[in-house]
Amino acid sequence: MGENLGQGFARPPAEAVASVVGELAARFGNRLVTSQAVREQHANIVTGATNQPPDAVVFVQSTEEVADVVKLCAAWRVPVIPYGAGTSLEGHVNAPFGGVSIDLSAMNAVLAVHAEDLDCVVQPGVTRKQLNEHLRDSGLFFPIDPGADASLGGMASTRASGTNAVRYGTMRDNVLGLTVVTPAGEIVKTASRARKSSAGYDLTRLYIGAEGTLGVITELTLKLAGIPEAISAGVCPFPTVRAACDATIATIQTGLPVARIELLDAAQVRAVNAYSKLTLPETPLLFVEFHGTQAGVREQAERFGDIAAECDGGPFEWATKAEDRTRLWQARHDAYWAAIGLMPGKKGLSTDVCVPISRLADCVEETARDIEASGLIAPIVGHVGDGNFHTLPLFDPDDAEEVARVGAYVGRLVERAIAMEGTCTGEHGVGQGKAKYLPREFPPASIQLMRALKRSVDPLGIMNPGKIV
Amino acid sequence: MGENLGQGFARPPAEAVASVVGELAARFGNRLVTSQAVREQHANIVTGATNQPPDAVVFVQSTEEVADVVKLCAAWRVPVIPYGAGTSLEGHVNAPFGGVSIDLSAMNAVLAVHAEDLDCVVQPGVTRKQLNEHLRDSGLFFPIDPGADASLGGMASTRASGTNAVRYGTMRDNVLGLTVVTPAGEIVKTASRARKSSAGYDLTRLYIGAEGTLGVITELTLKLAGIPEAISAGVCPFPTVRAACDATIATIQTGLPVARIELLDAAQVRAVNAYSKLTLPETPLLFVEFHGTQAGVREQAERFGDIAAECDGGPFEWATKAEDRTRLWQARHDAYWAAIGLMPGKKGLSTDVCVPISRLADCVEETARDIEASGLIAPIVGHVGDGNFHTLPLFDPDDAEEVARVGAYVGRLVERAIAMEGTCTGEHGVGQGKAKYLPREFPPASIQLMRALKRSVDPLGIMNPGKIV
Repeated sequence: MGENLGQGFARPPAEAVASVVGELAARFGNRLVTSQAVREQHANIVTGATNQPPDAVVFVQSTEEVADVVKLCAAWRVPVIPYGAGTSLEGHVNAPFGGVSIDLSAMNAVLAVHAEDLDCVVQPGVTRKQLNEHLRDSGLFFPIDPGADASLGGMASTRASGTNAVRYGTMRDNVLGLTVVTPAGEIVKTASRARKSSAGYDLTRLYIGAEGTLGVITELTLKLAGIPEAISAGVCPFPTVRAACDATIATIQTGLPVARIELLDAAQVRAVNAYSKLTLPETPLLFVEFHGTQAGVREQAERFGDIAAECDGGPFEWATKAEDRTRLWQARHDAYWAAIGLMPGKKGLSTDVCVPISRLADCVEETARDIEASGLIAPIVGHVGDGNFHTLPLFDPDDAEEVARVGAYVGRLVERAIAMEGTCTGEHGVGQGKAKYLPREFPPASIQLMRALKRSVDPLGIMNPGKIV
Repeated sequence: MGENLGQGFARPPAEAVASVVGELAARFGNRLVTSQAVREQHANIVTGATNQPPDAVVFVQSTEEVADVVKLCAAWRVPVIPYGAGTSLEGHVNAPFGGVSIDLSAMNAVLAVHAEDLDCVVQPGVTRKQLNEHLRDSGLFFPIDPGADASLGGMASTRASGTNAVRYGTMRDNVLGLTVVTPAGEIVKTASRARKSSAGYDLTRLYIGAEGTLGVITELTLKLAGIPEAISAGVCPFPTVRAACDATIATIQTGLPVARIELLDAAQVRAVNAYSKLTLPETPLLFVEFHGTQAGVREQAERFGDIAAECDGGPFEWATKAEDRTRLWQARHDAYWAAIGLMPGKKGLSTDVCVPISRLADCVEETARDIEASGLIAPIVGHVGDGNFHTLPLFDPDDAEEVARVGAYVGRLVERAIAMEGTCTGEHGVGQGKAKYLPREFPPASIQLMRALKRSVDPLGIMNPGKIV
């Protein structure tokens, strides 16, 4: 499923690769690895794409080291593939033209926490759970939570979000500034630490979602949020997926400041019950959470209960006990593994789309019908407050017919979302898997503009080639 | 104060300009204007910069007309200067190399309001007040409110914000997508109508804050917010500017979801009292507003009152009556004209910086000392919840010594903000006035990257030359 492999770039000659690997080995010693196992692990694709390993992996420790590696690769026109935690879902770390994977996982220091400014400075290998562990006693937290314990550099590069985005925004909204090594090996700072600025082009947002195709993020300044005084969370059953979507739409439209609102269809609930040993009712559910003062979260939860009842849902059972909440959200975050567990031996293709919220019920319902008509098992789960949902069709990678059936299903899903003024990916990114859909979503002039940006920042085309455009 | 006039661009030959003007006159008839009065009005600079009129002004009515004008100008390498409402503060609409001003004010239709999706689609000449008037019975509003009744295209182009940004964000956060005419005359759509997307480079944010140097915005899809159920607002006096800043810092740090928190120093309060016929205590004040439920705004206002008291401020008098609030915020929005009114005959140079909030009190206090030591009248007013504040030094444009003194003062202000990890402009933009400060805020590689983006999108350099880089 990596059909789009980038125009105008070719695998470099073996001598170029050998020269780069030789120089890196001399400089980095045993931090330069060429074993097949490590190379394949660095092209590990969680979903069903083909593994395309790099020629070598270098484990870097500083921005300056990254700059030196990139300069060397630029001199020999050898591809550079930034690697954080390897949890991306669209083949972002694959190396279709070989090259050097820059493993940033050892750059995992929290460099500063400015509690008084509600921000922090981290290296790109820090993972979201590690950061929140570090912040534990500060009264602050970092709200962006994709399912996996992804690295923050990777999360910025894929414009990741998660369950809290409906209230706290995505990586787009929560990065104040970046340090980036450009494809020429220059070190760029994208912004000051001010909360807002009108000083020049938005270099920060240029790199958020660029998927490592315009440079390597080596430092991030992130916004932090105060841990709310009170949190209430709960589960609400609905007779149909449409009813659950209608309740979501009404919640957003009435301005209820919900912090999380997550849909699980009945297939996903069955998977979660089996995987996480829960006894949730096996019907479409919304997992909901409210943040605020004690009085505020009670008021919000009661209003949500009323909305759910008007949509034939409920009862909405909610609690403020931290243990109950943790169990609930752990189950939600394990949804991917739970779904995979439905059919042992099969792989899952996690794919996501996002539509304007008024079209959410239509889009989810039509998708559910499509899944049934296609004879697929594909649980649906979603950050529905944003109009964003995921499906995970399961398939046997050795069964060409089933692979094709899944591919056709994903194609129809994307077309459906785009026809509803939505996007081919809400938070996973383009990578290899969605590259062919970009020209469906954007007119030719927009794609040409993206290509012009790529050419201008990376004229040699060495930065993560074969991704996005 | 327009020292930085863009490298590598020269005024086009007179024959080129004559050809363009001739063709435009043939096509647009009396919508192509070359009278001196209209040309000067289209280079009107609210602050003290020199008026540099374009060669002609064309009043366009559609995206296609904009594309045709830009293609013609590109063919003759004649500059294009987009013009909305002409309220920008840093010389953005000046035409240092002549060229064609594209007046977008007749493209002022609200094309769609999707109340169920909390978004709308507007043409770039719609002003913020016009949009909110249009939305009046919808229960929704557009929260971004620079002082002037600016056009939404211009607000996107300068990454504008205003008093609500501390809660609702800036233009960066409130634009879902744009239609843009590129410097080659191509029509680009930057995004779908989905709330979030990871589909490719962030073309939307590329254009927000680009100040018309990368193309002309011809349509905007904007996020809308629900009008809160309850609003409380009030004024709180403080003995010193530092005490007011300390109360602001504590408010933000404790996570109180303040909707507006605006500082006026004593000089500004005197100006406002005189201009708006109010009787506010002539001491540093915070204007504060809270949005939420009835119970919520009461709780927030009471907490703020406690914080103010701990910082030696108060009493905090607040009310929920709409008339009182309207009068208060109208006075705040008229602060610029009120300050100008302090010394009839003088001009004012409105300038803004933004610092991390922990440095706000230091920055404002040092600036107040600098104003006094410089012998200037320069009221301070600011969106202090973001760490953003403005000063308006008054000067006689014919008094070279005073002009130089103001210039030196602005330079020190910017250096002070940058030294505190802040930015040379929080919301006014770079334009001509701040261009010389960008290399102070960013390392050379960042400026080079901005220049590379500019060259790649606008290789002929015709789009609003002499601004930003």
